[in-house]
Amino acid sequence: MTSPSAPAAPTDRPLGVALIGYAFMGRAHSQAWRTVGAAFEVPDVARKVIVGRDEQAVSEAADRLGWEEHATDWREVIARDDVDIVDICTPGFLHAEIAIAALEAGKHVLCEKPLANDTAEAEAMVEAAKAAQARGQVAALGFTYRRVPALVLAKQLVADGRLGSIRQARASYLQDWLVDEGAPMTWRLRKETAGSGALGDIGSHAIDQIQELTGQRTAAVRGRLATMVPERAGEDGTEQVTVDDAAWATLELDGGAVGSVEVSRMATGAKNRLQIELYGTAGALKFDLESPNELWFLDATAPIAEQGFTRILVTEPEHPYLEAWWPQGHVLGWENAFTNQARDLLLAIRDGVSGAGDGTGFSPDFADGLALQRVLDAIIASDAADGTTVTL
Amino acid sequence: MTSPSAPAAPTDRPLGVALIGYAFMGRAHSQAWRTVGAAFEVPDVARKVIVGRDEQAVSEAADRLGWEEHATDWREVIARDDVDIVDICTPGFLHAEIAIAALEAGKHVLCEKPLANDTAEAEAMVEAAKAAQARGQVAALGFTYRRVPALVLAKQLVADGRLGSIRQARASYLQDWLVDEGAPMTWRLRKETAGSGALGDIGSHAIDQIQELTGQRTAAVRGRLATMVPERAGEDGTEQVTVDDAAWATLELDGGAVGSVEVSRMATGAKNRLQIELYGTAGALKFDLESPNELWFLDATAPIAEQGFTRILVTEPEHPYLEAWWPQGHVLGWENAFTNQARDLLLAIRDGVSGAGDGTGFSPDFADGLALQRVLDAIIASDAADGTTVTL
Amino acid sequence: MTSPSAPAAPTDRPLGVALIGYAFMGRAHSQAWRTVGAAFEVPDVARKVIVGRDEQAVSEAADRLGWEEHATDWREVIARDDVDIVDICTPGFLHAEIAIAALEAGKHVLCEKPLANDTAEAEAMVEAAKAAQARGQVAALGFTYRRVPALVLAKQLVADGRLGSIRQARASYLQDWLVDEGAPMTWRLRKETAGSGALGDIGSHAIDQIQELTGQRTAAVRGRLATMVPERAGEDGTEQVTVDDAAWATLELDGGAVGSVEVSRMATGAKNRLQIELYGTAGALKFDLESPNELWFLDATAPIAEQGFTRILVTEPEHPYLEAWWPQGHVLGWENAFTNQARDLLLAIRDGVSGAGDGTGFSPDFADGLALQRVLDAIIASDAADGTTVTL
Amino acid sequence: MTSPSAPAAPTDRPLGVALIGYAFMGRAHSQAWRTVGAAFEVPDVARKVIVGRDEQAVSEAADRLGWEEHATDWREVIARDDVDIVDICTPGFLHAEIAIAALEAGKHVLCEKPLANDTAEAEAMVEAAKAAQARGQVAALGFTYRRVPALVLAKQLVADGRLGSIRQARASYLQDWLVDEGAPMTWRLRKETAGSGALGDIGSHAIDQIQELTGQRTAAVRGRLATMVPERAGEDGTEQVTVDDAAWATLELDGGAVGSVEVSRMATGAKNRLQIELYGTAGALKFDLESPNELWFLDATAPIAEQGFTRILVTEPEHPYLEAWWPQGHVLGWENAFTNQARDLLLAIRDGVSGAGDGTGFSPDFADGLALQRVLDAIIASDAADGTTVTL
Repeated sequence: MTSPSAPAAPTDRPLGVALIGYAFMGRAHSQAWRTVGAAFEVPDVARKVIVGRDEQAVSEAADRLGWEEHATDWREVIARDDVDIVDICTPGFLHAEIAIAALEAGKHVLCEKPLANDTAEAEAMVEAAKAAQARGQVAALGFTYRRVPALVLAKQLVADGRLGSIRQARASYLQDWLVDEGAPMTWRLRKETAGSGALGDIGSHAIDQIQELTGQRTAAVRGRLATMVPERAGEDGTEQVTVDDAAWATLELDGGAVGSVEVSRMATGAKNRLQIELYGTAGALKFDLESPNELWFLDATAPIAEQGFTRILVTEPEHPYLEAWWPQGHVLGWENAFTNQARDLLLAIRDGVSGAGDGTGFSPDFADGLALQRVLDAIIASDAADGTTVTL
Repeated sequence: MTSPSAPAAPTDRPLGVALIGYAFMGRAHSQAWRTVGAAFEVPDVARKVIVGRDEQAVSEAADRLGWEEHATDWREVIARDDVDIVDICTPGFLHAEIAIAALEAGKHVLCEKPLANDTAEAEAMVEAAKAAQARGQVAALGFTYRRVPALVLAKQLVADGRLGSIRQARASYLQDWLVDEGAPMTWRLRKETAGSGALGDIGSHAIDQIQELTGQRTAAVRGRLATMVPERAGEDGTEQVTVDDAAWATLELDGGAVGSVEVSRMATGAKNRLQIELYGTAGALKFDLESPNELWFLDATAPIAEQGFTRILVTEPEHPYLEAWWPQGHVLGWENAFTNQARDLLLAIRDGVSGAGDGTGFSPDFADGLALQRVLDAIIASDAADGTTVTL
Repeated sequence: MTSPSAPAAPTDRPLGVALIGYAFMGRAHSQAWRTVGAAFEVPDVARKVIVGRDEQAVSEAADRLGWEEHATDWREVIARDDVDIVDICTPGFLHAEIAIAALEAGKHVLCEKPLANDTAEAEAMVEAAKAAQARGQVAALGFTYRRVPALVLAKQLVADGRLGSIRQARASYLQDWLVDEGAPMTWRLRKETAGSGALGDIGSHAIDQIQELTGQRTAAVRGRLATMVPERAGEDGTEQVTVDDAAWATLELDGGAVGSVEVSRMATGAKNRLQIELYGTAGALKFDLESPNELWFLDATAPIAEQGFTRILVTEPEHPYLEAWWPQGHVLGWENAFTNQARDLLLAIRDGVSGAGDGTGFSPDFADGLALQRVLDAIIASDAADGTTVTL
Repeated sequence: MTSPSAPAAPTDRPLGVALIGYAFMGRAHSQAWRTVGAAFEVPDVARKVIVGRDEQAVSEAADRLGWEEHATDWREVIARDDVDIVDICTPGFLHAEIAIAALEAGKHVLCEKPLANDTAEAEAMVEAAKAAQARGQVAALGFTYRRVPALVLAKQLVADGRLGSIRQARASYLQDWLVDEGAPMTWRLRKETAGSGALGDIGSHAIDQIQELTGQRTAAVRGRLATMVPERAGEDGTEQVTVDDAAWATLELDGGAVGSVEVSRMATGAKNRLQIELYGTAGALKFDLESPNELWFLDATAPIAEQGFTRILVTEPEHPYLEAWWPQGHVLGWENAFTNQARDLLLAIRDGVSGAGDGTGFSPDFADGLALQRVLDAIIASDAADGTTVTL
């Protein structure tokens, strides 16, 4: 759904990428831009410039991560003619300002999740994205786990009807990096900078997967939040933790299924354990991000005596994205999904498939991110209303 | 806490057992009575009489399951002098009448869970049990999974402080025997006979384990119930299913932890999957009833580079109940927990440890069952009140 | 293949069983005789008499394990008219004498594995068994793992052609009870009493399963034995260990497959880990005795993108022996296979299917045991000949 | 052990790399050179030139894989002044000629395993490497799995004495890409091009790991080889397969342990399953390359009731190489080990640690490769001698 004025991909030079942010996510995105052209048939990219506020640090990052230049002012960067894609890896509270400006500057945008820290910002971003998409720009949201091959295979199996009608979806995302009460205060534990806690950070993935895999949207929720360590040591003394350490929710999905979500940063021994289970009338699926190359599929139409969950090692050329990688049995890591994501973004740009906000282009886009944000808000509202149902 | 008039164990003859019911649970209890004396040092028992309403069927059951006699009138049976223990394996709606009568007749009672189908009945049973316990009788409730060795080991590890302070407890119990919409109506799907659905039947186990393992009681709950197949074919045409197919709850525990519960009879491919996870400040535990000989323990005080969940194969003589069974590595099955339960009951009788309703005797007793019933009721009430918190 | 004079099952009274031995195996067999009638439709049995050399100990065992009488002289016992089945659970060096006498006395015999400690004894036993089988007696050998439901299912899948032509079979049986160098000398570590070490004790199971599951016999072997702790403390000072602690072999099977075997009593952390893997042109299977209710099956004819090992939880009524036990998902333990074995023996007796040494009756019989013993001997001979091939 | 004339790392420009070969291994090594500088603090590298015989194909590979230039004559390339490192990813029969020439030209060399196809070639390579090492050049052999973090952790645990004295080591490497009899003839199935079959290709990894992890060398072997599909369709009609499809061996290790090896390309459903198990007097380890981020460690000195295999998710900053990668729980893939390997090579060059053939530099070096080749040869010789022991 490209507009006549779509920027699409330049034909005479590589697509220029500007990366805003150089921390954990900046490193992961750098790896994706570094490797995507070797793995996939995509338009060439040039890693033009990496942006950060600390000159010294961003200079070192440029050197280390392989960017041609570094810069400290993102406004100048998004105005450059040789920048086609702006990749935003800043903390969430900066997403709206940068993304809107970049879109208005005519750039394709890839924005890390969450879309924004509050709904007003997210709505403004969606408005800007719609206008940009109408001009042919791509406005992509970085829910990278949508590009984990096993989860894409899961989606295909559901779409092919192999689960029948899905009745029950379970997703939990458990981590343990806040178990220690002595761990200090950070911006991630303040509502004003982080928006929310485990719910927004990792619960967003859990809910996104439930919706993405089932193909059902959340119609209503009930939620509970808990802050298990309410105070932590800050630089200027004890501070209140103002976000959740853990959260629980049930989701009424519009296709009739019930989803359940449990997330925590206090689950001792769980490192990055996003577990997903889907139960349908004809089959079931299980997945665990700590073993990301495995998908467990049960075909309930098989003879009873042979039924069970099949461990599919998702490393065959027949599997999503895998033809580009290594031979069967040679497993992928967490980072490869970022490369897969970069591929899909580049193909959307090449093909001028901006989606125009109508769901036909790169998925998820900003509108998807806003919809998800509203689910998170509803869970928070439900908890605030003593657990009652909040309808979307 | 024995009273002077405690019946305790007769010294001149084996303890006579009467079993009421001969279906699935009757078979499992029969196996326990048949094997307990070979596995453990316990008072002798005589399998005196099995009781059922269908003369032909109960006669065959007596023959098959190895009971000396059969009978169709439980009232006559509980009056017999040679009956010391009444073991109740009927559907739940019959528990109260039989148990109260048996206790009043001076018998020790083992009653299958759930204690009763409604709270009024349960309260009456507790009253009768207290009086009986004061006379030295044992009134035991059959939450058999409390005698699964791996779960007893889990409890010991928690009690020994190996998990530190528990913050989060997860329990799910998933089955799939109602996935097929064509499966017919049964008494288990009618509220008047079954009390509740998945919640009472298997959710009771999940909640009991959370409380038993953490040592914390439920102070407040939020719940949701769902009936996914609302109508099924009955003998006289389509009938409404009046109990839940699946249920979800969060529990505020009085020790500060949050518990979560998810149960279902619609979880395709899950056969008898009671999964329990505990997360504490110093460690964590995982268990799955489909692999009941395994307990997974993480010691968070170990050096980081060596930390992880340890798969303990609970078959060592050092493990609970195991000295009585087979050498290491020779695993137990589901049924052995019933034998372990029979052992504990017989020892309580032998030692005159009736508990007198004060928690010092066989656990759980009827008061524990009533307390659990109130948690289940609160979850149902919460769902009826749109998910709001119900305090216990 | 019953002879006219077959003793078969008496019709007027239960089959009388005499059990010789009351240690570990005696306990397991007692459990089987105690429970078989409750689980299965079989002829009634009476646990007549248990036999041991220590009057006091066997008297206690009779009481504990539920035998009507005890005795110290097995010769008197096998002469009794009310004894129909002689169940031999003594150490291996006593098997031949007792089994031959019992068979000659007209009794059905169940003899624990191994058949005998040396081939000469085994040959004599086979002669006696053939004569007895011709008279309609059953001469059964107790390779109990043939009655583990998951392994029977495995055999069915192979027999149904689901694996195609099997090319490779792997079996390992690892235990760790001799890891400690301080563990004292026992009769199991002396060649004259035990025959061999890990090879005969647990390697026999591994090889039996390879042959049973593939349906192929061993045509030639290469082997290696090792004694890792060559001396241990005996009652009268240090003694030489004269059997193997671990053994390895490759088997040329007559159907063209290659089998590999590795067994050890020194595999730290392995408790009772019999692992079996079969690889065929159309499929594959995996099994682990520490998780005995699971069979892993791969169907290589399925679409590549969905292929993988399916974890079949072998607890469905459709699975071998399971209809007699508990509902789906309620797992069996190690001991249940003994009950299944007792069932098959009783049905063979009831039906007069003695096999007459021709492989049509209870399997394995003594001839099977002799054939297996020859494989074990060949492995020992190969090791003695520096690893060269020994043909059977 | 640097010589005064050591080339070491140039200080004024990046180290220039030439890659010979652009197939599977060429792609993997390209990924390593592409990413090593971003992940680790290492000397800069320039991906100068990629070499192949097919001009068109190597030109495309250069473009795709990100090399500055391409070339078709490796002799010219190794003579270039701007090339410091020659990375050899050709089939094995070309290794010797290229590696010797490159070493003589003063270059550092990384040669993919196997070192060579026959021992004479390997010996010549070792001679060349010794001379080059004396000049300060690094001659590295690419047994990449030595850089899988979980296996390095395993080695550390062994070296720290956590397993005590190792008695038994098991390694199997199972794949299934030759199961289909219709799969055509390739150079990998001809002895003259491939040297050997499964034994050399994947058995070499199994044996290398046994030796590397135990720290023990192979003193003697017994072996068996099998070719299960002896003929395959070649371009000019049916051809004999002249290498092994599967192989088995037992190894006497010089520290007293016994090793066992089983490898196959016919193991239906096994994709890239290198499994390693070590059993010692104080502990045990298990590893599976299909789940490469997990190491299973059993501490046999822990209390019995808590013992078991601990699943260590090897993704902590405390684990080998991991500080350079992602946060805990964010798993690595197969490819990352190549980057780790490139790091170690660059550090060896930077530090002038050539090893001089004495085992102090990059490990493994060519001498290690020759030693391993001799073990493989011994296994082949043993099989040819009917399985008898061949001493090294």
